[in-house]
Amino acid sequence: MNSFGKKLTLTTFGESHGKALGCILDGVPAGLKIDEEFIQLELDRRKPGKSKLETSRKEDDKFEILSGTFEGFSTGTPIAMVIFNTNQKSKDYDSVKDLFRPGHADFTYFQKYGLRDYRGGGRSSARETAARVAGGAIAKLMLKELGITIQSGVCEVDGIRGEVVDFEFAKTSKLNALDPSMEKEQEQAILNAKDNHDSVGGVVLTTATGVPAGLGEPLYYKLDAILAEAMMGINAAKAVEIGDGVASTHLKGSQNNDQITLNGFKSNHAGGILGGISNGDAIVVKTHFKPTPSIFQEQDTITTHNEEVKCNLKGRHDPCVAVRGTIVCEAMMALTLADMALLNMGKKMEHLSSIYNK
Amino acid sequence: MNSFGKKLTLTTFGESHGKALGCILDGVPAGLKIDEEFIQLELDRRKPGKSKLETSRKEDDKFEILSGTFEGFSTGTPIAMVIFNTNQKSKDYDSVKDLFRPGHADFTYFQKYGLRDYRGGGRSSARETAARVAGGAIAKLMLKELGITIQSGVCEVDGIRGEVVDFEFAKTSKLNALDPSMEKEQEQAILNAKDNHDSVGGVVLTTATGVPAGLGEPLYYKLDAILAEAMMGINAAKAVEIGDGVASTHLKGSQNNDQITLNGFKSNHAGGILGGISNGDAIVVKTHFKPTPSIFQEQDTITTHNEEVKCNLKGRHDPCVAVRGTIVCEAMMALTLADMALLNMGKKMEHLSSIYNK
Amino acid sequence: MNSFGKKLTLTTFGESHGKALGCILDGVPAGLKIDEEFIQLELDRRKPGKSKLETSRKEDDKFEILSGTFEGFSTGTPIAMVIFNTNQKSKDYDSVKDLFRPGHADFTYFQKYGLRDYRGGGRSSARETAARVAGGAIAKLMLKELGITIQSGVCEVDGIRGEVVDFEFAKTSKLNALDPSMEKEQEQAILNAKDNHDSVGGVVLTTATGVPAGLGEPLYYKLDAILAEAMMGINAAKAVEIGDGVASTHLKGSQNNDQITLNGFKSNHAGGILGGISNGDAIVVKTHFKPTPSIFQEQDTITTHNEEVKCNLKGRHDPCVAVRGTIVCEAMMALTLADMALLNMGKKMEHLSSIYNK
Amino acid sequence: MNSFGKKLTLTTFGESHGKALGCILDGVPAGLKIDEEFIQLELDRRKPGKSKLETSRKEDDKFEILSGTFEGFSTGTPIAMVIFNTNQKSKDYDSVKDLFRPGHADFTYFQKYGLRDYRGGGRSSARETAARVAGGAIAKLMLKELGITIQSGVCEVDGIRGEVVDFEFAKTSKLNALDPSMEKEQEQAILNAKDNHDSVGGVVLTTATGVPAGLGEPLYYKLDAILAEAMMGINAAKAVEIGDGVASTHLKGSQNNDQITLNGFKSNHAGGILGGISNGDAIVVKTHFKPTPSIFQEQDTITTHNEEVKCNLKGRHDPCVAVRGTIVCEAMMALTLADMALLNMGKKMEHLSSIYNK
Repeated sequence: MNSFGKKLTLTTFGESHGKALGCILDGVPAGLKIDEEFIQLELDRRKPGKSKLETSRKEDDKFEILSGTFEGFSTGTPIAMVIFNTNQKSKDYDSVKDLFRPGHADFTYFQKYGLRDYRGGGRSSARETAARVAGGAIAKLMLKELGITIQSGVCEVDGIRGEVVDFEFAKTSKLNALDPSMEKEQEQAILNAKDNHDSVGGVVLTTATGVPAGLGEPLYYKLDAILAEAMMGINAAKAVEIGDGVASTHLKGSQNNDQITLNGFKSNHAGGILGGISNGDAIVVKTHFKPTPSIFQEQDTITTHNEEVKCNLKGRHDPCVAVRGTIVCEAMMALTLADMALLNMGKKMEHLSSIYNK
Repeated sequence: MNSFGKKLTLTTFGESHGKALGCILDGVPAGLKIDEEFIQLELDRRKPGKSKLETSRKEDDKFEILSGTFEGFSTGTPIAMVIFNTNQKSKDYDSVKDLFRPGHADFTYFQKYGLRDYRGGGRSSARETAARVAGGAIAKLMLKELGITIQSGVCEVDGIRGEVVDFEFAKTSKLNALDPSMEKEQEQAILNAKDNHDSVGGVVLTTATGVPAGLGEPLYYKLDAILAEAMMGINAAKAVEIGDGVASTHLKGSQNNDQITLNGFKSNHAGGILGGISNGDAIVVKTHFKPTPSIFQEQDTITTHNEEVKCNLKGRHDPCVAVRGTIVCEAMMALTLADMALLNMGKKMEHLSSIYNK
Repeated sequence: MNSFGKKLTLTTFGESHGKALGCILDGVPAGLKIDEEFIQLELDRRKPGKSKLETSRKEDDKFEILSGTFEGFSTGTPIAMVIFNTNQKSKDYDSVKDLFRPGHADFTYFQKYGLRDYRGGGRSSARETAARVAGGAIAKLMLKELGITIQSGVCEVDGIRGEVVDFEFAKTSKLNALDPSMEKEQEQAILNAKDNHDSVGGVVLTTATGVPAGLGEPLYYKLDAILAEAMMGINAAKAVEIGDGVASTHLKGSQNNDQITLNGFKSNHAGGILGGISNGDAIVVKTHFKPTPSIFQEQDTITTHNEEVKCNLKGRHDPCVAVRGTIVCEAMMALTLADMALLNMGKKMEHLSSIYNK
Repeated sequence: MNSFGKKLTLTTFGESHGKALGCILDGVPAGLKIDEEFIQLELDRRKPGKSKLETSRKEDDKFEILSGTFEGFSTGTPIAMVIFNTNQKSKDYDSVKDLFRPGHADFTYFQKYGLRDYRGGGRSSARETAARVAGGAIAKLMLKELGITIQSGVCEVDGIRGEVVDFEFAKTSKLNALDPSMEKEQEQAILNAKDNHDSVGGVVLTTATGVPAGLGEPLYYKLDAILAEAMMGINAAKAVEIGDGVASTHLKGSQNNDQITLNGFKSNHAGGILGGISNGDAIVVKTHFKPTPSIFQEQDTITTHNEEVKCNLKGRHDPCVAVRGTIVCEAMMALTLADMALLNMGKKMEHLSSIYNK
């Protein structure tokens, strides 16, 4: 229940204000060069406090590999990674100890488990996504060997939608904006919300190119279904689209079908997936994030003792989770594709022959 | 890979034009009254040919239980159900034997497996959803014992969106329309597309009421993530929204948070799920279906021998898959919730005590 | 819970006296020639009534493939197989309807589920092993392509142990005896037990040759551990040995270690497995079966209504389950090895390169 | 592949000479008091160097909980535990860097992965069992709440078999011997082997009492089958018996059946399991361990470069792994039973009613 993937399996642990968080990534093939610097860079992309658009919390997110590598290469055994928590201000959360923050998982964890670690959201904190990013970084290293590249960016903030998709620009943008012409307006929307002690939603576009045709397992481990699971499972995600997604429902079949030529598909409405299996075209996924539930306006709520009270939050929070959500979306796509690449081996008898009968 | 669910597991088999299709539903608790009439009624709701809005194929879809019940009750052993194929016109598919129909899984199955059963889409045919509906029907019987009700309807066709949600009306509507005031217009859009040898997309709304708080497993088997997987895995689905979904990204946090009172939540933007766990409110999911890829207009494609050809389809197809998709969405939601209800047992030590230490 | 294997998954269904029993075998690579005649021959080896050493029940065990093949080859989709029950004499079981047969699963099923299908043992009947044999036959077809051969025979009956291992002889022996010099004595032990309305135990030796080194997944899906699970899960199995097994505990390390030369291991005490992974030598497993619990002597038992009664069984039963258990052991070993062969793909980065970067 | 259990899942990581080893235990119900002192005591029972019968390696095995508990109780989130390695003498292993130690997993890991961490056996080292013991300790805390007690001891060393089963005595015995009258002789056998630079095998008896009837999942997650997997998966295990095991095959059915009275079973040949499900009687399992492969006599072997060489081991090793294997057997049985107790919930519809419809 705390694991993702079937043949490449990420199992995570840790709470926001516990001793440490981390993961075990199991199923990495032996002989993969583990570039620790790259993993740290990925974690740095996710870590907060890089601009005014993000929470001012300082989390170093220095990771450490505890197992599974030897002389710089994966050995085929589980790779455990840990990040020790260092900058936790648990005191900030004393005021929410007995109440349920609206829009948060406080209420449901309490209902499910009968108790909860209230400090910083405990297990339900988005801080857990650091473990996803660490695991995703290794998945990216695997995919790189197969010629697969994953990129992402913010295409919409607070309903302000960009049309241009410029991944290179996104890498230079403080909010990972994909459309240079909309960046300022989108940034202003975030800052306005912050000034109003409020928050805004946003949409992340994630793509993978170089994906071979054939990845994805019919009928209950389809590539699109698992990407949907992967993205919807990220904190604050409320909708997932594959390819044209919602827009495809406004097209006629004659418009939406991607016709086929010897040079490939004439269009990519499908987002690179047909029947749950990659078709060789770019995989395209949009993930919609609700506005951050942690806002600094007074809200109605109840306590664990069934009293109605006012909720006034302290703490430090991102005014728009989509900004840092980009790297998490990339990580989840990388984990999904790497898992699918492993699962796809052995789907043809000739795969077995090529490996066992050489 | 052909199984869905962890503790309540549906495994399906069968191709569109093979001998039979069916499923094994494993994990049904012993002592559930198995109402076979209800299961058949659910299958009848899905079966085609009930109106001009649907394919004219005749499929009786008479199901048979092969195991797992005794004297009308489940025994706790796997329940196998089978539907023998009777009205298959495989000849219709001779013309597509060597080519890939645009928008279909033909191309990707061939890439993945190196061969395919081309008759009627083989395994990738939506005919497989009959097995989901049979399994979902039993899941509904389980949920009924827990006071959970699942309903659905079509809220949008070809971009024509209804606002009203009237599940009772939907039951009487040929297209399962939720908004009585839009039904005619939506119906006309489907018939127009059909007349033009084309197809249209649509959106299905599915809800569950009476769901206890606490269902859903953090962090990688969240209720919303698995509902996303469940719905996105249905043929032709391209987007899934939970609660307000896409619309929630246009709200501020102060608008989107569902504030809490002793009488429950003041709103339900969240669609009944917080942190991946049900909060006791209605579960709300929207599934977006692309226009049916099978259209009767000439399209460009290639053959399995790498030649460019024109694709001219014959056969009988639904002009809008959302119409019959409703019952499949219900089935997938039922299977998901029943699985989650089983998984949630044992999350508190007091659960164990109540069962083992009486 | 009714499934075996991770990448090659056998899911079975069916009760002894229900309509049918069968299985879904999922994960068979596409392009495997499915020799239906061979599958039926394997089922015929298992079916009862071939000699006085077996139950006189007549079960034709004619199987039918419902899905997953096309023009004689596997398509990569789930292969469903069904055997309809035809010769069930449920009346025979009226007398045990309310009581628990000693040594049987009657008591535990009733405790677990609160009700049970008492006819012929229901789901707990060894009749379910027909589904294992059908699935195992396809696994054997896969393994054959990899050069792996599985053989078995009875090495001990009622404590009468053979030393010689002659698989060719076993194929001609009514009791599948491995040691020609002990066959008569072993046969007489079975017939004596039968005359006394009693039963005897026996031991089955199963081997696989041609197994490549590298199969088996450390640390919790080891080849020996899963073989132990596979064999112990067969009805009436009470002990499993790998290689020298029990005898190895009587050796010194210096005697038991299989020293290594360029021509291979100097001995095979290990039974072809080191650290849970195949070493290229023959896999050797012994499975110990208790005496059939169904005997025709009066025994003490209780009823479902908590009364003490005498149990006097009718019906037709094997006096020694090891005899027909041989083919079931082969099937379980085949399923295990085929699964392990699939799982092992992708353990080295070079596997991925060989498949994706050609 | 590095995980054990379905609802209570232990995932371990770590190599003998890496930075750390540890585990994530997922599925512990919320509200269990986590007695850290008890966990450390269990680890202390396993740790080496307590007597001359064990390796003289000093491993402190101080564990640390990183997540999953709050104010002394489990929260329902994954419990990560880590043990940092401190006393590793990797230099000892330079001489085996390029060769395969007979009887060890060196050869098979190299075959499977193409490379290996040769220091101290890497991942295949029995040092990994510390993680099992830590996880097993928490499983024991769960079982204690259900009234289940697990005990173990050594019943045989080097073929010297004890008849008496005295668990209290075993707790005081340096070799965890069950039969006080055989302890001296068994101890001497170990010391003799050690003096001869050799090793001996042994047999561990493990039992659980207080187990409710109904645990174990037919047909492919049977209690006996999973116990067999659990025990056979421990380093050096070569045979597993349930109840009378091998001996039961020498009995007649009339002797082996456990007849039933209102006071329970008249005997326990079955070892508490019928049809793969616990019957309420004591669970009895015997695990046979081969002699430690690490011996200090010259042996033939080959190198990774395909040369024949002599293997002369250094290092510190247990002369009889059964001695410290006892606590590992207990841990594996505890993990198995706790998992089965969780899985069994929801097998009757009345379970669901009792939890959801109160």
